[in-house]
Amino acid sequence: MGSTSARIAVDAMGGDHAPAEIVAGAIRAQQELGVEVLLVGDRDQISLALKQHTNISPSQVQIIHAEEVVEMGEEPLTALKRKPKASIRVAMDLVKNNQADAVVSAGHSGAAMAAALLRLGRLPGIDRPAIGAVFPTAMLNKSVLILDVGANVDCRPKFLEQFAVMGSIYSQYVLGMSEPKVGLLNIGEEACKGNEQSLKTYQLLEQNSQITFIGNAEGRDVLTGKFDVIVCDGFVGNILLKFAEAVGEIVLQTLKEELSAGWQGKLGATLLKPSLRRFKQRVDHVEHGGGLLLGVAGVCIISHGSSQAPSIKSAIRLAKEAIDHQVLDRIKVWDQNPDPSEVSN
Amino acid sequence: MGSTSARIAVDAMGGDHAPAEIVAGAIRAQQELGVEVLLVGDRDQISLALKQHTNISPSQVQIIHAEEVVEMGEEPLTALKRKPKASIRVAMDLVKNNQADAVVSAGHSGAAMAAALLRLGRLPGIDRPAIGAVFPTAMLNKSVLILDVGANVDCRPKFLEQFAVMGSIYSQYVLGMSEPKVGLLNIGEEACKGNEQSLKTYQLLEQNSQITFIGNAEGRDVLTGKFDVIVCDGFVGNILLKFAEAVGEIVLQTLKEELSAGWQGKLGATLLKPSLRRFKQRVDHVEHGGGLLLGVAGVCIISHGSSQAPSIKSAIRLAKEAIDHQVLDRIKVWDQNPDPSEVSN
Repeated sequence: MGSTSARIAVDAMGGDHAPAEIVAGAIRAQQELGVEVLLVGDRDQISLALKQHTNISPSQVQIIHAEEVVEMGEEPLTALKRKPKASIRVAMDLVKNNQADAVVSAGHSGAAMAAALLRLGRLPGIDRPAIGAVFPTAMLNKSVLILDVGANVDCRPKFLEQFAVMGSIYSQYVLGMSEPKVGLLNIGEEACKGNEQSLKTYQLLEQNSQITFIGNAEGRDVLTGKFDVIVCDGFVGNILLKFAEAVGEIVLQTLKEELSAGWQGKLGATLLKPSLRRFKQRVDHVEHGGGLLLGVAGVCIISHGSSQAPSIKSAIRLAKEAIDHQVLDRIKVWDQNPDPSEVSN
Repeated sequence: MGSTSARIAVDAMGGDHAPAEIVAGAIRAQQELGVEVLLVGDRDQISLALKQHTNISPSQVQIIHAEEVVEMGEEPLTALKRKPKASIRVAMDLVKNNQADAVVSAGHSGAAMAAALLRLGRLPGIDRPAIGAVFPTAMLNKSVLILDVGANVDCRPKFLEQFAVMGSIYSQYVLGMSEPKVGLLNIGEEACKGNEQSLKTYQLLEQNSQITFIGNAEGRDVLTGKFDVIVCDGFVGNILLKFAEAVGEIVLQTLKEELSAGWQGKLGATLLKPSLRRFKQRVDHVEHGGGLLLGVAGVCIISHGSSQAPSIKSAIRLAKEAIDHQVLDRIKVWDQNPDPSEVSN
């Protein structure tokens, strides 16, 4: 898996704006990031979407035909059984058969996770995979990885402990934190705070010598930059993720409303355009792509259902980084030997 | 309980900035809101704090001496048993003995809740009280009530159903929403989404004819203004509340950093000062006071530990509004007769 030839299977049929925006993002990624993209889905629809892009010839893009799609309302396992030719399942099989190095999907996230588990399986030592999302923090150029943000609505303490280890490896090798500081999302700083799950998880994290656990992270601590990795169950994490994304948008909208009041505001707003654009970049989820499904035996990026081309491109970049930094091998090595730096380079 | 003579017992010893900021906020409330304040705590410390306020004579302020304090690290029930003269307990007794109409505390929130339950008891029909917090929304002059934000870390579906009813009453009679729209905080819109708790709660809310349940609220829906009341357990709610408060501050800090880059930004920032101030008011928690402890037989406002004078004043205003609008009587009446408008005015 070299850094210049990562092969990314993209579920072209998944997401609110599929296939047009998915195809657009994939083509941009192929042209700008030096990856090889495999568009998985209905050949006719994909071909039609490709016609919008005159700067690329059809021969430069690979299409892998898949005639079925898992719809948003479907129960994942049932849908995957009924639809063996669903695009998400075909994409996973490409990785399983070593025809691709990663999958990117903005479709039904439960179905993507189920397909990954069914077709690729879990990494050794991992009971449940988790979706990790990278949030910006108040510190410039410092982000925080939060997991799980939606794969498991109910978690046992040992699942959260595994999330902490996987998150630390990802933070260290992909996000470049030398000794990632781990926190447990909770309602108070003290070890005695929280529900039954958090009390037990606190103990496990404290005793785990493979991570740097620095204590509970309250809601107010999430974006300070004090923590590099924060673990929580997928119920809380998913609500927090969607809330955070919406807040960014609401703040910008509210600011615009306030700015349009009076000439001072209007003149000020004009002068501030470049600042506001940079600000938007710092808080915008589009820049951060999607979530990495950690713990399955393959690189899988789960993007937002609302993803448009820029998000898809960011998600493909994330997949490329996970491949380049051998994240899966390091998690595998950790299970046998708790020093993930020992992976062969 | 008339609107001009509400008597508010303020726990002067509770909070990070007690007693100085608590006393300052209480005095401001007494002078500006037409309420009667009773400062509960160590007489000497309160008197010392009062000396900072030359615009009020000592005879105008009532001090109720209480020689003990529940500290932040203490286990609530044990602490209340060991310290019968703790300020929060003495404050609750003032309400119990009809010497005050409400309690405001920025101290140990668990201890405040335990003291309220022990000394005042629950309202009929309520198994667990909940802390409700009012959030601003993207719609101007429209807020959303979220409960529980910290009283109960683990909740049964029927507790959440009771929160929905109490929240609806509060939203209707204090916040002025004519037919409050209730949502269940969850990870998806569909009825089949969520953990075991949310699936069961969805059914209960759907069947309850006393509220207007409009479905699941995802994280992204919380601040849109689509919902008037959103119910969740105190674990998720507390994390969301603290996260939301911190986000407001971080956004302002990030904006300031971006604004200080270059002369355009600096000039723009100067012109925008009034807009930014209004913006800050819309997102700032100080304006929103604290949380109302709904379901106990007395009006209790639980403020942030970090509260300073303006927050305490807002919390006292909140207490006054709950008294003026007879929120407790309406919840009591609902238990006997599901039409809370029938309370005598």
